[in-house]
Amino acid sequence: MEKFFNPHSVAVIGASNSPFSLGATICNILKHISFSGGVYAINRKGESIGDTPGYSSVLEVDEEIDLAVVVIAARHVPDMVRDCGVKGIKNIIIQSAGFSEGGPDGEVLQQELDEVSRRYGIRYMGPNCLGVLNTHGNFCCFFGIVPGMYDDVFEKRGNVSYIIQSGGVGALVIDSLQSEVSKINKVVSIGNKADIDEADLLDYFKNDNSSVIGMFLENVECGRKLFEKAKEIDKPILVYKVGRTSEGARAAMSHTAGMANNDVIFDSACKQAGIIRLNSISELHSLPKMFTAMPPLRGKRIAVFTNSGAFGGISADFIVSSGLEMAHLTSETQEKLRKTGQLFNASNPIDVGPGLSTQTFIDIFDILLSSGEIDGLLPIPNVWQDVVIDSIVEIVKLCQAYEKPAAIYIPNAAERIISIKNDRQIPVFESPEEAVRALEVSYRYHDYLSKKELLAWRKYYKDRAREEGQPHRNIDQSVSLRQQAL
Amino acid sequence: MEKFFNPHSVAVIGASNSPFSLGATICNILKHISFSGGVYAINRKGESIGDTPGYSSVLEVDEEIDLAVVVIAARHVPDMVRDCGVKGIKNIIIQSAGFSEGGPDGEVLQQELDEVSRRYGIRYMGPNCLGVLNTHGNFCCFFGIVPGMYDDVFEKRGNVSYIIQSGGVGALVIDSLQSEVSKINKVVSIGNKADIDEADLLDYFKNDNSSVIGMFLENVECGRKLFEKAKEIDKPILVYKVGRTSEGARAAMSHTAGMANNDVIFDSACKQAGIIRLNSISELHSLPKMFTAMPPLRGKRIAVFTNSGAFGGISADFIVSSGLEMAHLTSETQEKLRKTGQLFNASNPIDVGPGLSTQTFIDIFDILLSSGEIDGLLPIPNVWQDVVIDSIVEIVKLCQAYEKPAAIYIPNAAERIISIKNDRQIPVFESPEEAVRALEVSYRYHDYLSKKELLAWRKYYKDRAREEGQPHRNIDQSVSLRQQAL
Repeated sequence: MEKFFNPHSVAVIGASNSPFSLGATICNILKHISFSGGVYAINRKGESIGDTPGYSSVLEVDEEIDLAVVVIAARHVPDMVRDCGVKGIKNIIIQSAGFSEGGPDGEVLQQELDEVSRRYGIRYMGPNCLGVLNTHGNFCCFFGIVPGMYDDVFEKRGNVSYIIQSGGVGALVIDSLQSEVSKINKVVSIGNKADIDEADLLDYFKNDNSSVIGMFLENVECGRKLFEKAKEIDKPILVYKVGRTSEGARAAMSHTAGMANNDVIFDSACKQAGIIRLNSISELHSLPKMFTAMPPLRGKRIAVFTNSGAFGGISADFIVSSGLEMAHLTSETQEKLRKTGQLFNASNPIDVGPGLSTQTFIDIFDILLSSGEIDGLLPIPNVWQDVVIDSIVEIVKLCQAYEKPAAIYIPNAAERIISIKNDRQIPVFESPEEAVRALEVSYRYHDYLSKKELLAWRKYYKDRAREEGQPHRNIDQSVSLRQQAL
Repeated sequence: MEKFFNPHSVAVIGASNSPFSLGATICNILKHISFSGGVYAINRKGESIGDTPGYSSVLEVDEEIDLAVVVIAARHVPDMVRDCGVKGIKNIIIQSAGFSEGGPDGEVLQQELDEVSRRYGIRYMGPNCLGVLNTHGNFCCFFGIVPGMYDDVFEKRGNVSYIIQSGGVGALVIDSLQSEVSKINKVVSIGNKADIDEADLLDYFKNDNSSVIGMFLENVECGRKLFEKAKEIDKPILVYKVGRTSEGARAAMSHTAGMANNDVIFDSACKQAGIIRLNSISELHSLPKMFTAMPPLRGKRIAVFTNSGAFGGISADFIVSSGLEMAHLTSETQEKLRKTGQLFNASNPIDVGPGLSTQTFIDIFDILLSSGEIDGLLPIPNVWQDVVIDSIVEIVKLCQAYEKPAAIYIPNAAERIISIKNDRQIPVFESPEEAVRALEVSYRYHDYLSKKELLAWRKYYKDRAREEGQPHRNIDQSVSLRQQAL
């Protein structure tokens, strides 16, 4: 799988000098982002594309080729894949459309493709996909991101990876992450996933440098394989799946040739495998920062802090509805808070007046995070002064120090929020419900991991008891001690 | 009530030359926005504020005063209100805080205020409020909008009015509407609403130049009054109310001194009164455009159109979940669609390829809107070329011509959506769920109005039958004929 993301050499089959050649664009992108491997343009005439040498077939290239990217018309694909097989290329990304998603003729082509690839032991991505992007490897044959955006993506490398069954959603996510503090590691568009599927990719992301995995799926064909792979991974997996309703599933089928699934079963399997199922596409780009920029939420008690009173009540509603709790602050803590400056309300939600200094903000956060009475923070600072923005930067540091997370929401217009995110690179959410959702998801994932760890310990103690010939020994006490240590 | 929004003369009580005088800021704003009436600054020394003449008491002003705006410390408020009473001022906006929301001392001040105002027949807004803004009347004593934003608000006047029990939410809504095609008519911050409440204001907005009314409420004290007023109004009323949970209600109480309400009862009363209850604060600024810029949705059948295939399935899920339906297109209509150009899918959702011209987009929308097979459109055009943006402008015109609405979602990053909204002034939503929600809300409101009209006709026929001495005549047939005419 490594050769799909970090190939030493790539053949772009279908790169020509004809106008609008997608293959030529890929060659140019690879040059633009300083891809260090060899690139070979394959087209009928054997033309070179700028600096990229051209050949009329992969068989004419003397050097070894790790990966072929195919962007020719579907009817020529099986022949080209055969050439790749003869040349010894084992990894192919087939971006061409017109297979199973395109009616009976496409089905026949898909069968041919399957036969050829099986014969030569070839693994392929797609067809009908938009390719792969790997920021750390300076490799990209991914189509569909906004022109001129490549520079940013490859300059600001991150650790969030995506498996996406749609180019449009992929482009939207990449585009949106530009203003987020979480950045991209890898993106794969899997299209019809006739060979390599989301489970194969999860298996690869299990041990690579990804720390969060996002997925957009239109259908799941091998559910068992997916959930088994997911259970082996101790990284948050965020999944948006189309097809909650039969109409949605039907629409998705026409797009990437999938099968409808029972959504209720999918939902419950996600819970068991620790997969976080998303409610909206925007969560694919808004939630990763909660995992990359903040410690996990280890309990349910949330303190709300705001300088815009109404948001106390608004967010308390969301917190309670999400299954989290409004933290109860003791009178000692409230007294400490009152001493910091002008507070309208020192009980939770904490409502502060205007004109506080950055230091006062820090003092308040410090009192809350060190109190032992809260597990996480929901700061809602209306940003109308620089002191407020400066204080947000400090919250992030304090959270790391106390190992407790904050989901920060700024109650300003979206335009202003985005500009602050761009300028300061801080993890900020765009609505109170999104911030609460981030806390909820952080807590649920931590809870899943804890339970998984306890199950593992329970198994360990059971096995040991059996080995020691005491299969009926009560192991609850040992597990309970472990639980306290978590 | 008119004098609160269009006063001929205003006394700003508490406007002085001391630093940070809120009153002085109000005088300066009124000058800045070219308020045409008289303005009088009232302060202990009787100082003028720039061009605004100063007096030590309203009693010293010779001219008649329509409205007093009070921004002094709470303890002085009852005395000043008494002066206003003596002077004959009947309308006061009390922005000062420190009354019922501020503990026992505040309660006492509130009682004094009630007595004085009753004695002189004074109606007042607040206390603990941020005042009033009326774009068409060039009047503003509203605090809390971002500095430098006044110009835009008063240059681009609209017809959406807000009753908001929080300055922070008011500022957020005003700020956010800047990039929306719907603009502001009036904003009122009602604070503790000890005298004038949301129902009084609804009564005023019933016959003014508002076409949509948005409300943010932390509590409702006279529910019956509110719902009776709402029933009299044939304009959409959008309400976000805090306190779905007891924790949210408790938090709101500490902010503006309200009482908790039974949320389930509130919800069902909203439905009966045709009030649209909102799920998030952002709907206060995102939904009005569905009413101001689009015809109503008169049926449930929605056609989805996209050039980014995945969004067909994503939005079909949201449409079906919201109670609307995916329109069924006949084979004739699908055939017509196929003839326009390269389509991946001509059945609903309609999925089109790249490289379509603006005219092709227009042809497709024309076929759909004229088909008689749909009630509304959900266009999801990924904007990566100018032809796409141009086509969106045309959709808006076609919708007006065919009297069927479109809720347009652009699947690009928020930054790009906002810039398109700013540049083109078109009604665009920021997520597929928000667009579907707009369609749902439009349909529900249309449905409410239709049922209300039928009930009125039923009553009319019943009354006539009784008058004619035939109280048992079957009136269903007459009503049914009316229904068909709607």
